[in-house]
Amino acid sequence: MTLNKTIALIFAIIISLAAFLFAGWLYAWIKRQKNANDKIHSISQLIKSGASTFLRKEYLILGRFAAVLAILIFIFLPDPVWKAGVGDNFTIMLSYVFGTIFSAFAGKIGIFVATIANEKTVEAARKGIKPSFLAGFRGGAVMGMAVVGASMLGVALVLWITDNPTMLLGFSFGASSLALFAKAGGGIFTKTADISADLVGKVELGIPEDDPRNPAVIADNVGDNVGDVAGMGADLFDSHVASLAAALVLAYAIDERHAVMVLVFGALGLLSSILGVSMARMGKTTDPTKALNIGTYSTTALFAVLAGLATLLFDFEWRLYIVTLLGLAVGTIIGIATDYYTNDDRKPVHKVAEASESGPALTIISGVSYGFLSILPAMIGIAISAFGAYMIAAPLGATPAMEIKYALFGISVAAVGMLSIVGMVISNDAYGPIVDNARGLAEMGGLDKEVIDRTDALDSAGNTVKAITKGFAIGAAGLTVISLLGAFISEVNDAAIDLSMDFEITAFDIMDPKVFFGMMIGAAVPAVFSALLMIGVSRNSERMVKEIHRQFDEIPGLKEGKEGILPESDKCVEIATTGALKELIPAGLFAIVMTVVVGLLGGVYAIGGFLAGNILSGILLALFMSNSGGLWDNSKKYIEAGNHGGKGSEAHKAGVVGDTVGDPFKDTAGPSINTQITVVSLFASLLAVIFLTVHLF
Amino acid sequence: MTLNKTIALIFAIIISLAAFLFAGWLYAWIKRQKNANDKIHSISQLIKSGASTFLRKEYLILGRFAAVLAILIFIFLPDPVWKAGVGDNFTIMLSYVFGTIFSAFAGKIGIFVATIANEKTVEAARKGIKPSFLAGFRGGAVMGMAVVGASMLGVALVLWITDNPTMLLGFSFGASSLALFAKAGGGIFTKTADISADLVGKVELGIPEDDPRNPAVIADNVGDNVGDVAGMGADLFDSHVASLAAALVLAYAIDERHAVMVLVFGALGLLSSILGVSMARMGKTTDPTKALNIGTYSTTALFAVLAGLATLLFDFEWRLYIVTLLGLAVGTIIGIATDYYTNDDRKPVHKVAEASESGPALTIISGVSYGFLSILPAMIGIAISAFGAYMIAAPLGATPAMEIKYALFGISVAAVGMLSIVGMVISNDAYGPIVDNARGLAEMGGLDKEVIDRTDALDSAGNTVKAITKGFAIGAAGLTVISLLGAFISEVNDAAIDLSMDFEITAFDIMDPKVFFGMMIGAAVPAVFSALLMIGVSRNSERMVKEIHRQFDEIPGLKEGKEGILPESDKCVEIATTGALKELIPAGLFAIVMTVVVGLLGGVYAIGGFLAGNILSGILLALFMSNSGGLWDNSKKYIEAGNHGGKGSEAHKAGVVGDTVGDPFKDTAGPSINTQITVVSLFASLLAVIFLTVHLF
Repeated sequence: MTLNKTIALIFAIIISLAAFLFAGWLYAWIKRQKNANDKIHSISQLIKSGASTFLRKEYLILGRFAAVLAILIFIFLPDPVWKAGVGDNFTIMLSYVFGTIFSAFAGKIGIFVATIANEKTVEAARKGIKPSFLAGFRGGAVMGMAVVGASMLGVALVLWITDNPTMLLGFSFGASSLALFAKAGGGIFTKTADISADLVGKVELGIPEDDPRNPAVIADNVGDNVGDVAGMGADLFDSHVASLAAALVLAYAIDERHAVMVLVFGALGLLSSILGVSMARMGKTTDPTKALNIGTYSTTALFAVLAGLATLLFDFEWRLYIVTLLGLAVGTIIGIATDYYTNDDRKPVHKVAEASESGPALTIISGVSYGFLSILPAMIGIAISAFGAYMIAAPLGATPAMEIKYALFGISVAAVGMLSIVGMVISNDAYGPIVDNARGLAEMGGLDKEVIDRTDALDSAGNTVKAITKGFAIGAAGLTVISLLGAFISEVNDAAIDLSMDFEITAFDIMDPKVFFGMMIGAAVPAVFSALLMIGVSRNSERMVKEIHRQFDEIPGLKEGKEGILPESDKCVEIATTGALKELIPAGLFAIVMTVVVGLLGGVYAIGGFLAGNILSGILLALFMSNSGGLWDNSKKYIEAGNHGGKGSEAHKAGVVGDTVGDPFKDTAGPSINTQITVVSLFASLLAVIFLTVHLF
Repeated sequence: MTLNKTIALIFAIIISLAAFLFAGWLYAWIKRQKNANDKIHSISQLIKSGASTFLRKEYLILGRFAAVLAILIFIFLPDPVWKAGVGDNFTIMLSYVFGTIFSAFAGKIGIFVATIANEKTVEAARKGIKPSFLAGFRGGAVMGMAVVGASMLGVALVLWITDNPTMLLGFSFGASSLALFAKAGGGIFTKTADISADLVGKVELGIPEDDPRNPAVIADNVGDNVGDVAGMGADLFDSHVASLAAALVLAYAIDERHAVMVLVFGALGLLSSILGVSMARMGKTTDPTKALNIGTYSTTALFAVLAGLATLLFDFEWRLYIVTLLGLAVGTIIGIATDYYTNDDRKPVHKVAEASESGPALTIISGVSYGFLSILPAMIGIAISAFGAYMIAAPLGATPAMEIKYALFGISVAAVGMLSIVGMVISNDAYGPIVDNARGLAEMGGLDKEVIDRTDALDSAGNTVKAITKGFAIGAAGLTVISLLGAFISEVNDAAIDLSMDFEITAFDIMDPKVFFGMMIGAAVPAVFSALLMIGVSRNSERMVKEIHRQFDEIPGLKEGKEGILPESDKCVEIATTGALKELIPAGLFAIVMTVVVGLLGGVYAIGGFLAGNILSGILLALFMSNSGGLWDNSKKYIEAGNHGGKGSEAHKAGVVGDTVGDPFKDTAGPSINTQITVVSLFASLLAVIFLTVHLF
């Protein structure tokens, strides 16, 4: 039986709508749960309003940015409007705008639900860990369903309306450019608040985390939402769209039948996630980590079965099915390797905790060392999946030229496979900040130790799972951008035909001076990008630390915790918001401007090298920063659990330093690099015609 | 007028011998200077004997390692001995052994003189800063002259005897493989001692640096010699040999006339350094940094003039002269950029010092950020010099194939240009540890504050210059390994012709799955390599910290500084020695084994990618670690100079943490990466035939 594209598109749209319906049902379920006591409710409202304020201000700025970019796109892309006419330029601009709106919408929904679910989770924790887990997980799942539903729906609609995969690159670029700023801005916000709260609270004054006296505590909780929920959602929305877009561009270069397969596999992944999410609960286990992992593994198994059935029924190529599974398997392996380096049951965390006994310097040195080591398994995993996908898919081509097309398409299918269960991944990931918030609310609301312990257990599971999903996200981004490099070649060669140029890219030769030139510059970009973000965090933290000091000095009774004396939390939220929005601009612009400069200097070959260098060093640094950050976080927690002297010991102080260093590593720079490499890859593809026709060398 | 190869070889040999004679004269001059008082003399003897012990033990292990490798080379390289016969295999083995011996010899001389010069420098400091500067600088110059003399002599002799540039790769690999371990082993030794001495001395007990009560102080001073003098000498010996070897391999691929040019330029570089060194003294200036820089700049100018004259006289191609100058200019620019990020008069150091007021976490975050930023100018510099060299040299070729040969040769000539003044660079660099030791001796010998201040000024100049020379060394290594990639292609293609295979590498295409596979793995290697070295340092430091604690606990009167109570310094030297030699093995083997594995899996294309990935991430990480390390070191010094609360303040404590983290970054891992990428590149070239004929995919 063969399936035509229209039916596949309808199928994809139906599953997307099902995801939205399910998200609606989950939302209604959460709404029905009991509110917490008044004190917690009012704090929760503060968090909610802080998050909304940030989001509103952020979207206002991003809206202007997107509008400018939309106009530029209309004028220049895919070809200057005075040369090519209005048609394509207008469509690509619309696709872009559409992408930004969908991305903003997914982030907004996530925040909206998360800031309700946190309160419900803490209230449920009074009854027990299981209902509390369910509230937290379902809150995250709303985000997961909304993000993947929006991504699938957007891709399907753009493809249906335009029947032109280049427009998907526009849609994807819309998603990415917003994600770049959402992730970076949210990342700066959350770490500004977190670091400042810790530096003054834990380190200077020795008051516990989430102590309501600390003026930065509300900002910290808002940060969990804007950074981890909205930012991460935008990030994975972007990865998912990019993986589909790249695969569809490369599929069209072969034939429509392969586009059908991509759509069906994408929709089946979403379907598996819906089913996986609806079945997830703690059941008999008392370990929330296990419950989350069971959900992930059953979604994976379900997808493998469904995709196999589809291959059988609709006569897709089995080699591509195998490639899909390869992507999924390698994603899991990268996740497990990441887990090894960040799990507090494993040697790296123990070694770093042990080194902390000799002071913070050795905490940092050993953490950096293990962070560097953690790069190897993931790099090998990505290398094997790209190589394997290429080798398995290439024989499908009848001619050498078709072999290469199939091979590149194979790599993109591996990325689609790796991201097939992204609905589940996001649900797990958004669960983290919700229970983290719940823990904070329990502490601030002065609930029983038993309740706090329950939320603590949920929070710790969130941290563990987060490490795995981050490994997953980086691996998928790696494969996606490799296939985007393939999409770039395809775009350039198509453009050359359109322009009747006698030009075809057949290779990016490392020994070609332009390619090499591009590689060197491209490799430097993620480092500089990360540096600018982290400098933003440092600068912003210094401002907030000053403000916290001011409040403790000037508000009488605050330090002593006098009844009824509240800190001016909104001032800290304000500083975090303004600072984050100010600091994110240079980093984002830098990446985009460098792409333009290199392309205008050296043309498409320089850009090929630029993208390759960018991918290589981007993956490297993203893995290093995410993993060492997670490692420091967990070794601090490991010490706090009573090892090496426990809380208050010298080892603990050193562990806190490590954790603080790790914060912007793992929550600002590391995950933003993912988005940076995707944005640059998409942007380069969109500018293919310009780089082909206008360059200095 | 044209010059034939024999005359050029004789010229190179004469200049090398002149360098040795000059080194001998400098040594005699130093010997004639006055010894210090008995106390200092006896401490100096302790340092000398510690350094000799380490070197003896290290060379014993390296001797065995080199012997095993020599046998393997004889059996397998360039082709298995049972296939190709004894001839070439024996010669290449001899060249290899010759390379290791020359490298060991250069290191040994350096240590020998440095451990005499330190005492002379401190004695001269009693008279004034100028004679003291001269003693320190001339001590370093012995090393500079010996290293470059040995390198030039070795290359000339091997080429004269064999007339086969492949043998130069063997010689170069001998130098590199020894350098890898000398640099890594010395780096682990020196940082083990430094960190342990600081952690217990400065941080825990609050006693000053170089306090004679501290059992690790002697080991620390020994470390300056084995790490910075012997290790750095081996490193630059290796870079210089590799740049000449790569250039000569590529020159032979064109014609002998170009080999003549490489030899003449190399010899003129050495001649300029001889003249530069002989003129260097403080003269009217009171600033030792200025004196060192004037020496470097006049050497540079001298070389530019001499190379221009040679081009005019002997009818070399002016384009290649321009490429040489380009290399030299970019080297200087990279040095200046490095200086910006590490100089304590500049913004980055001030910002990190300022951030230190908020505790060690922000010291680390801001230092990492500026370290990342510092990558950009150097990467752009290397990119421009490679691109420029390629474009300028390519038109010399009459056919497209010859254009590429000229282009690759052009890149190697840029590297030769960058390293032309290496004799001066090493002299400056070896000056650092000598005056650092002198400062230590002045402190331990209880000399006047005025004398200590003088040695302090000399030491600080050493640190500044060190940052610049490190930037220089990394830039040169970058260009050298790019030309080694060219040499690898040339080796493979020659081998294919010899084997009558219908095979020619024309490109390393990034989209080729084998190349991409190799790139991913190659990029991970420098990270893992660094991690293993740093873990070695952590592990070894933990051992030594325990030993220092034991001595303070068990030796009565030591902590109080009772007259006549001496620490058991030899125990610390012993721990540093044994540990360093144990810890360096995994890192070195890892790099070599990964090369073999990737080559046997994916053949020459995978290796091409592997080398490219390795170069890219190697340069990136080397720049990051060297520069952030230097930055932390200087911001600590900046705080100690009385800023942000000065010594003993919270900012100072944070600064010490940064400095300690930076120690293994800048003195162990960072500079060792240079050697790692060179070793791997040379090793791959030597194994070209094997990778060409035996591979899984």
